[in-house]
Amino acid sequence: MKTTDMKDTGNTDVQSSQLMKLFEDELKDIYWAEKALTTAIPKMIKNATSHELSEALQKHLGETEEHVRRVEKVFELLDKKATAKKCEAMSGLIKEAKEIMDDCEEGVMRDAGIISAGQKVEHYEIATYGSLIQFAKTLNMEDAAELLRETLKEEKAADEKLSEIALKTVNMEAAAQPTSL
Amino acid sequence: MKTTDMKDTGNTDVQSSQLMKLFEDELKDIYWAEKALTTAIPKMIKNATSHELSEALQKHLGETEEHVRRVEKVFELLDKKATAKKCEAMSGLIKEAKEIMDDCEEGVMRDAGIISAGQKVEHYEIATYGSLIQFAKTLNMEDAAELLRETLKEEKAADEKLSEIALKTVNMEAAAQPTSL
Repeated sequence: MKTTDMKDTGNTDVQSSQLMKLFEDELKDIYWAEKALTTAIPKMIKNATSHELSEALQKHLGETEEHVRRVEKVFELLDKKATAKKCEAMSGLIKEAKEIMDDCEEGVMRDAGIISAGQKVEHYEIATYGSLIQFAKTLNMEDAAELLRETLKEEKAADEKLSEIALKTVNMEAAAQPTSL
Repeated sequence: MKTTDMKDTGNTDVQSSQLMKLFEDELKDIYWAEKALTTAIPKMIKNATSHELSEALQKHLGETEEHVRRVEKVFELLDKKATAKKCEAMSGLIKEAKEIMDDCEEGVMRDAGIISAGQKVEHYEIATYGSLIQFAKTLNMEDAAELLRETLKEEKAADEKLSEIALKTVNMEAAAQPTSL
């Protein structure tokens, strides 16, 4: 950990604590997850029909690229090399999103499926960043907590935007379309 | 769909709609996920040290068994046989929870890891039930929406309880314990 940050921490013991180890492990996990999303979201955009959904996903792709950089900044605050560790949960979530897209008819049904899958991804991140912020606060790392809070805010906003699109148009249209499956 | 529920629906077209197909697919997915949790949560209880955490997980295990039954009731409302389809996301979440338990030292660190993994599971369910409720409402299936809302309420409460345990004791204790890893 850098000297500047050690001062901020005010307690050198926490650096070799069990919680710090868990914090680092979870950072490696979300680093993998965010990077995986930068390749998964473009596939969702390609499969979306609704212009509003494509736009929302495009905006969130840009935010996700920034989330990767923020996690790298948190690693820097810890004076650690940014390392990714395969996140089994995000791997499963992305696999499930792909399955939903394959199983849904193109158009509103697939849009509704993409929104549902996207909200599961957002909630995984909301839970993860929630834990990371609590860990950072307990470890007296306010700078790290602040960076993580910015990301959490964007994940929550993305989740709400997806809800809004589903409620406003996509779900009702999918309820009016007969299925051929 | 049963006659009583058809009356409730008020629109027979929705029964063969794309949204109904998606609703059924998502029900199969959460049915698998809830059943998988009835075997995963006991392993988390076995690994927990904190009495309060064990108790909270034990309570949620009972609720999860009820969630399985509620999903079966929703299938009944649809006049469909309850069918489980492997939920890749929950499979990944459970795999990740196992990894966290294996990687953490026994005691407070593992407790903190169990809480973090548990909250990811809860958030997956919060997102899924959120989508299912919206689907049920759009399909005019108020009876189904009500059953799903009861479960969503319990998932949210379980998530909040885990946050409370982390904040009140576990995280601080884990920050005070040196790691041997």
